[in-house]
Amino acid sequence: MILEKINQANDIQKLSKEEWGPLAAEIRQFLIEKISVTGGHLASNLGVVELTMAMHLFFHFPEDKVVWDVGHQAYTHKLLTGRRAGFDVLRKYGGMSGFPKRKESECDCFDTGHSSTSISAGIGLVKARDLQGGTQAVVSVIGDGALTGGMAYEALNNASQLKSNFIIVLNDNQMSIAPNVGGMSNYLNGLRTAGAYTGFKEGLQNTLELLPGGERVIRQLKKTKSGLKQLIIPGMLFENMGITYLGPVDGHDIDQMMKTFGEARRLKQAVIIHVKTVKGKGYEPAERHPARFHGAEPFQIENGLPKSTRTKANYTDVFSTVMRKMGDRDEKLVAITAAMPDGTGLKRFRNMFPERFFDVGIAEEHAVTFAAGLAAGGMKPVVAVYSSFLQRAYDQILHDVCIQNLHVVFAIDRAGLVGSDGETHQGIFDLSYLSSIPNMTLLAPKNKWELSDMLKFALKYQGPIAIRYPRGEAYDGLGEFRRPIQTGKSEVIYEEGEIALLAVGSMVKTAEQVRRRIKEIGYHCSLVNVRFVKPLDEDTILELAKSHRLLVTLEENVRCGGFGQQVQDFLCARGITTELINVSIPDEYVEHGNVELLYQEVGLDAQTVVKRIVTRYVSM
Amino acid sequence: MILEKINQANDIQKLSKEEWGPLAAEIRQFLIEKISVTGGHLASNLGVVELTMAMHLFFHFPEDKVVWDVGHQAYTHKLLTGRRAGFDVLRKYGGMSGFPKRKESECDCFDTGHSSTSISAGIGLVKARDLQGGTQAVVSVIGDGALTGGMAYEALNNASQLKSNFIIVLNDNQMSIAPNVGGMSNYLNGLRTAGAYTGFKEGLQNTLELLPGGERVIRQLKKTKSGLKQLIIPGMLFENMGITYLGPVDGHDIDQMMKTFGEARRLKQAVIIHVKTVKGKGYEPAERHPARFHGAEPFQIENGLPKSTRTKANYTDVFSTVMRKMGDRDEKLVAITAAMPDGTGLKRFRNMFPERFFDVGIAEEHAVTFAAGLAAGGMKPVVAVYSSFLQRAYDQILHDVCIQNLHVVFAIDRAGLVGSDGETHQGIFDLSYLSSIPNMTLLAPKNKWELSDMLKFALKYQGPIAIRYPRGEAYDGLGEFRRPIQTGKSEVIYEEGEIALLAVGSMVKTAEQVRRRIKEIGYHCSLVNVRFVKPLDEDTILELAKSHRLLVTLEENVRCGGFGQQVQDFLCARGITTELINVSIPDEYVEHGNVELLYQEVGLDAQTVVKRIVTRYVSM
Repeated sequence: MILEKINQANDIQKLSKEEWGPLAAEIRQFLIEKISVTGGHLASNLGVVELTMAMHLFFHFPEDKVVWDVGHQAYTHKLLTGRRAGFDVLRKYGGMSGFPKRKESECDCFDTGHSSTSISAGIGLVKARDLQGGTQAVVSVIGDGALTGGMAYEALNNASQLKSNFIIVLNDNQMSIAPNVGGMSNYLNGLRTAGAYTGFKEGLQNTLELLPGGERVIRQLKKTKSGLKQLIIPGMLFENMGITYLGPVDGHDIDQMMKTFGEARRLKQAVIIHVKTVKGKGYEPAERHPARFHGAEPFQIENGLPKSTRTKANYTDVFSTVMRKMGDRDEKLVAITAAMPDGTGLKRFRNMFPERFFDVGIAEEHAVTFAAGLAAGGMKPVVAVYSSFLQRAYDQILHDVCIQNLHVVFAIDRAGLVGSDGETHQGIFDLSYLSSIPNMTLLAPKNKWELSDMLKFALKYQGPIAIRYPRGEAYDGLGEFRRPIQTGKSEVIYEEGEIALLAVGSMVKTAEQVRRRIKEIGYHCSLVNVRFVKPLDEDTILELAKSHRLLVTLEENVRCGGFGQQVQDFLCARGITTELINVSIPDEYVEHGNVELLYQEVGLDAQTVVKRIVTRYVSM
Repeated sequence: MILEKINQANDIQKLSKEEWGPLAAEIRQFLIEKISVTGGHLASNLGVVELTMAMHLFFHFPEDKVVWDVGHQAYTHKLLTGRRAGFDVLRKYGGMSGFPKRKESECDCFDTGHSSTSISAGIGLVKARDLQGGTQAVVSVIGDGALTGGMAYEALNNASQLKSNFIIVLNDNQMSIAPNVGGMSNYLNGLRTAGAYTGFKEGLQNTLELLPGGERVIRQLKKTKSGLKQLIIPGMLFENMGITYLGPVDGHDIDQMMKTFGEARRLKQAVIIHVKTVKGKGYEPAERHPARFHGAEPFQIENGLPKSTRTKANYTDVFSTVMRKMGDRDEKLVAITAAMPDGTGLKRFRNMFPERFFDVGIAEEHAVTFAAGLAAGGMKPVVAVYSSFLQRAYDQILHDVCIQNLHVVFAIDRAGLVGSDGETHQGIFDLSYLSSIPNMTLLAPKNKWELSDMLKFALKYQGPIAIRYPRGEAYDGLGEFRRPIQTGKSEVIYEEGEIALLAVGSMVKTAEQVRRRIKEIGYHCSLVNVRFVKPLDEDTILELAKSHRLLVTLEENVRCGGFGQQVQDFLCARGITTELINVSIPDEYVEHGNVELLYQEVGLDAQTVVKRIVTRYVSM
């Protein structure tokens, strides 16, 4: 095994050139084997094996700095910087992260997770280098998908002003998670088919001179005052913005890439190297289904099929089904995703109503204001988005949707702890950042039937309204409780004893476990499904506070600004001193790991909650 | 007066062509006279008089839809849609807004305020139109400054896919508030000097044919498989993205603009019309100092000088001075603004340390992640930004700065109520959205000396830290209280009586008034300057709760997720039942108007607070 010779950064540089090809094959084999067991991001990592090797052959770590946009494609980088053993505990609780982490290795210079940040961070590292007189290379590796995100463009607009070296590797696999959309994508498609090209100003004249009549055109071009100013060549869009374009380069040809790094490194400005890669390269199931192997569950290597087959529907499935049904009934219903037609479950809606489905690319800000425009124009837009990505559009929700009180429905998937993706992806802030926005209505369903009911309710509602639901299997308990959704009304499921559990969405299931366990001990609990985090169901809360001695709020969200604080504030403002236990996530980021373990870590598991309640109750 | 004939939408179409010029002059005169009295946005409005007239001559309102990016340049639009009388109460409490408002007129189809939203909203209106079989025009008017914002690019990327008419008017005055920056700006500068150009595919061949040797080149271009594919002409960057480019057009030539609208309207796709305008056009002081006449205070028409001269420093001045001083002492200090070198007070820092100053354009997201990169690279970045604009970078603060616990200093200006700009600009959410982010430290100064001390403290601190301070004159009372800033420690100013006022930043001044008035009634209050909203000074709060019967928290922020709720939550969690009054902004947007009136409206004025305290206290 050549891979066994790679035990720390730069070890790869000791290999002979003949070993490069076999090493690439070994890395692919290693990644497939490991990820088939642990799960993880496969397709994107298989696509950048040679690219990463070329970078580690050309650059020197940790002195040189590489920022990995999104970061889920850094597995080979981890392998080449002494973290092979980590792959046995990849994305496990306490184990290695699936993303670059400064605390994990000196060779990870900037943490990533969300899309389109790498050029901004890279420019920061470049300016820090220059102001301190450093000479190290700074490289941002960004996918063509991430290039649909606005902040990447904000950064390009600034990168063009650099007077020192900064390398942007455009890893172009024609995919974000789904195939890419938009003008930039079409443009890059054009470039992919063009011949390799290096440097605009040097190359233009040469190229023209080769054409019959070219010299004359050059002379004319220099004289003319008409609009005809320059000739276009690949990368002209970037050159127009002031960034040198090199490429396209074969992202599976290490020699070619190293040569291009050499050219790029000589320039005292920002350079884009356009590298063409194949997502899932070298593993046929992943090449054929890159979206399925984006973030993969453990799978069988022979055929790529998941090891465990799901038997229960998850919330995304429920959302998907209802959207399809409601799309049929209501021609005003339109659906928007930011590059997640699969992940959000909108694919079936797209297939049935292509005219009313919009994938805007990785562009959450645009997605929300576009939805606001649709609503202002009389349509009923549903924005389906993951909780942690919706953070990107906080201002658009506040400024473009809610000030105008427009009827935009937010279907917030992956709300709460998501598990193995870790701190960047936990959806634990939405109740806080949405609750503080005026005019917003905010719901969370207790089980799969309620998500369906809430979505139908939201489509009939007027004004901004959000439903947040967790990743994974939809809870199918408490099916016998299905009272109609009424604005601002919670659902009292059981009413008994002196303790009342007020549970938000996913925590209803936990609260039901808590109630049963406490019953075994000999106490009784009321169980309330909160349904509306905003507006508060003040009447029910008042009644509960009067008829119980202890209230317990439960939510999968940070404490600050969350539901529990709203209840506490409301009670205190009314002068009610009923005791309250606030079960929520403490003021810290939650790392990656199995969700059940994470619940224990943050104290959201039934056992911890039972203990807190009983301890308090017996001392009252 | 021709202007008097314009009493409702489309009245302008009844005028003879000869009246257009005089009308433009009258409009300018009207705007200058009115704004010299009320204050308001002048330079941007003077620049678009003819553009707006051309739109109202060509399009029909309210059927056709115009989205004004940012929106402060819609004064002529308001004049031409029957709102002349509104200018006497422009930006006054209860009067006409300085921005487009759907509730103000049918002719305002989408509310704006923050930058770069208009293309997204416009595409939404286009899709809504097409799905409902409408035929009205949809036009987004966006400045070249707003084009540096990422969401405009996200939208362009999507606009390119439209198969129906959408007109984007690029109002190019080479300014945001300050002169523009970046690659896009350089690119547009190139275009401005080029001849007028209409339509790429039609025009390319014609243009080439006029050149000697051109026909041969065309034939060769069609055959060649080299990278040389097409010729570049003005607007190629947009054409590359799939958007037709028309222009540049003289933005003060109504005929030319109407002709171009006609061409644009025939195309079944997105079209950019590049209109060159002069900011401040027709009023010499505004042409010379467009930044000063961006948002102007009342001024003397003869010379453009402000009617009232400021005698006291405002917080921005204090920030400006300290930054300059500290920049001298610490070479690692760098400063970042998003297109606001004047507004944030960084201009002097820029002049002294141009290498360490970065104006990134209207690009708050990039600004924050760029700062994170600088911090990761060993520098000490200060991001100076207005509170309501920082909302744009919520995810970048949470995801790029705070997860990595990077030492980025946020200097948050215009926090709290800003007054006449209204709901889109009130900085009343920052305590909520920043408090819920782990690792964040959050301060607010009571007076001008404390801002200076806090900034120095923040520069020495490790980790993400934000200081929020209000618009306008810096409070210069309580100067005798200047104990050193200590992490997480509030400042007890007076300790007496049974009532304790815990005031955040700007509310210390109000609390001091409250304390004095209550003293006149015969009661006594302690006064605590909170200093740290996060982390809470738990020890002091505990002591105050023990030694007082009534706590009063005061903050210029919405209640939900704000300081008062954190104090209440903390006390309840400790089982402490000391009564608490939470003085904060209720859960609603706050419209434009004089700040003192707005304080009364939301109950943050001393009189209302006194009344609440006394009422509660006597009943205890």
